[in-house]
Amino acid sequence: MIGNLCEDCAVIDTCKEIERQGFGVKRGEKIYLHPIEALYLQLNGKAKFAEFEKLVNWVQAKVPNFPEVYFVYSDLRAKGYKAKPQDEFIVARRKFYPISEKKEVDFEILLEKLEKEKSFIVAIVDEESEVTYYELFEAEIKGEQVESLPKITGKILNDRVIVENADLFKKYFYGNLIGNSVILSIFESLYLCEIGALEIDLNKLRGVAEKIKDFDEKYEIYKDLKRRGFVVKTGFKFGCDFRIYRKVESIEDLPHSEFLVLIAKKALRLQELARAIRVANAVRKKLLVALRGRYILFDRVKV
Amino acid sequence: MIGNLCEDCAVIDTCKEIERQGFGVKRGEKIYLHPIEALYLQLNGKAKFAEFEKLVNWVQAKVPNFPEVYFVYSDLRAKGYKAKPQDEFIVARRKFYPISEKKEVDFEILLEKLEKEKSFIVAIVDEESEVTYYELFEAEIKGEQVESLPKITGKILNDRVIVENADLFKKYFYGNLIGNSVILSIFESLYLCEIGALEIDLNKLRGVAEKIKDFDEKYEIYKDLKRRGFVVKTGFKFGCDFRIYRKVESIEDLPHSEFLVLIAKKALRLQELARAIRVANAVRKKLLVALRGRYILFDRVKV
Repeated sequence: MIGNLCEDCAVIDTCKEIERQGFGVKRGEKIYLHPIEALYLQLNGKAKFAEFEKLVNWVQAKVPNFPEVYFVYSDLRAKGYKAKPQDEFIVARRKFYPISEKKEVDFEILLEKLEKEKSFIVAIVDEESEVTYYELFEAEIKGEQVESLPKITGKILNDRVIVENADLFKKYFYGNLIGNSVILSIFESLYLCEIGALEIDLNKLRGVAEKIKDFDEKYEIYKDLKRRGFVVKTGFKFGCDFRIYRKVESIEDLPHSEFLVLIAKKALRLQELARAIRVANAVRKKLLVALRGRYILFDRVKV
Repeated sequence: MIGNLCEDCAVIDTCKEIERQGFGVKRGEKIYLHPIEALYLQLNGKAKFAEFEKLVNWVQAKVPNFPEVYFVYSDLRAKGYKAKPQDEFIVARRKFYPISEKKEVDFEILLEKLEKEKSFIVAIVDEESEVTYYELFEAEIKGEQVESLPKITGKILNDRVIVENADLFKKYFYGNLIGNSVILSIFESLYLCEIGALEIDLNKLRGVAEKIKDFDEKYEIYKDLKRRGFVVKTGFKFGCDFRIYRKVESIEDLPHSEFLVLIAKKALRLQELARAIRVANAVRKKLLVALRGRYILFDRVKV
């Protein structure tokens, strides 16, 4: 079947098969196709619009994120969806947002899109044109930990604090027990000091914190998670910033931590994001990407 | 037991128990202790050398990397090892290299140490003073893939290349099959072009590559892995740069890829490294960190 390229779309004569498969928009005797649809039809031998290079150059000029939009479209079609390109998304029951693994993801922009869309699926196209799908939505997370902490005193041990009250670990799951002492992290120490539970030289503690890279950014999220009622522990072993628990009754009866929290840097490489989601899924947790007190939940999905 | 702090060590009178547990060096009637040993004995109530703060300040001045050296030492002691601080290591049958999760790791320095030590264990101390152990050694990796590729022609599709020879995927595992076409990544395309298997506009391809961040660095490793006889595919889904196969007979009989390859940036955060090792282990692969044609194998170990 022979078609033509116009200003913004490609045109072919109406044809039952192409219509039935949900390509383009029929007006009168013509079907008007999105550039991605035209390329797909031509690459699959169903229509011819122009020489390959000319067609590709035309599609490239019309479609911002080409070729990743194409690969996602093609993958969804291969999976049996009547996919439709629509603005920056591909719509196939749900909305898919194609992005290349080479790009960096700007979480501000994802949050903006989420405000409009509630939830959508990020479709990441890797180096080999394979697509991985991640569902995301903004999560309103809330823990149930209520703490009535004892008054404690501590001693600064370089960038940590040592306290003699083992309950702080055993009952409240702060720090780590070494011998009979509890070693608190700088986040925990500063927080406990600020809420008045820990008596220590606050200025000296702040001086220690200042020397730590990205401390403030991370501490803000730590405090926000505490405010939301979570027990917050380091996520280091899972390659994240924090792991969080809704509620901890005692250290002997430690529940499973449901979420891993990764702090969104200005520009997070998608490779890093993919790795974090992979780890979270491998340990049956969900990944939350934190951005100034807001949380995007990422979950790998099969479509 | 009361001891004293000297210039570089702490001293106590000989004592059977402390001697038997392998602390310090006995000379005459005295045991000479490393600052870390002294702190450990005092924190565990076996000896007293000075007021807590004075002792900690003294240890801090004597031991670079305090307190992470202390936490690793203490963890190894708790596991029953007669651990000994020795230069930057702690020796307990094997050599342990303590490092804080807050630090960035310089792979040049790790490689230098590996040249002397052959293999050692990196002990990473996280925010909560817990220790995770990773064994590492320099790996001489070698694949067995022999390729006699057909001559092919292709067309540039933005930052990828499309070729019509499906064998390239089915027999040699290059690219990805979409319909009857194989879509090659820019790495694969450039490589195939350089070895004379793919006929295409090399300058145009190089122009595309130039626009990709860190392309050269990654391509050098790609070529090195090919030269070593591996089938090299993207590691994106595993959050790494590449996954590699020793030998692929055909796509129907695809073996398990044994290694994931992560390219060492000048400064890789330990959090990122921990995450990569975690993913690799979760999918029963080993992590190789690549640095200009040399490879460090990381494996999480229980000690």
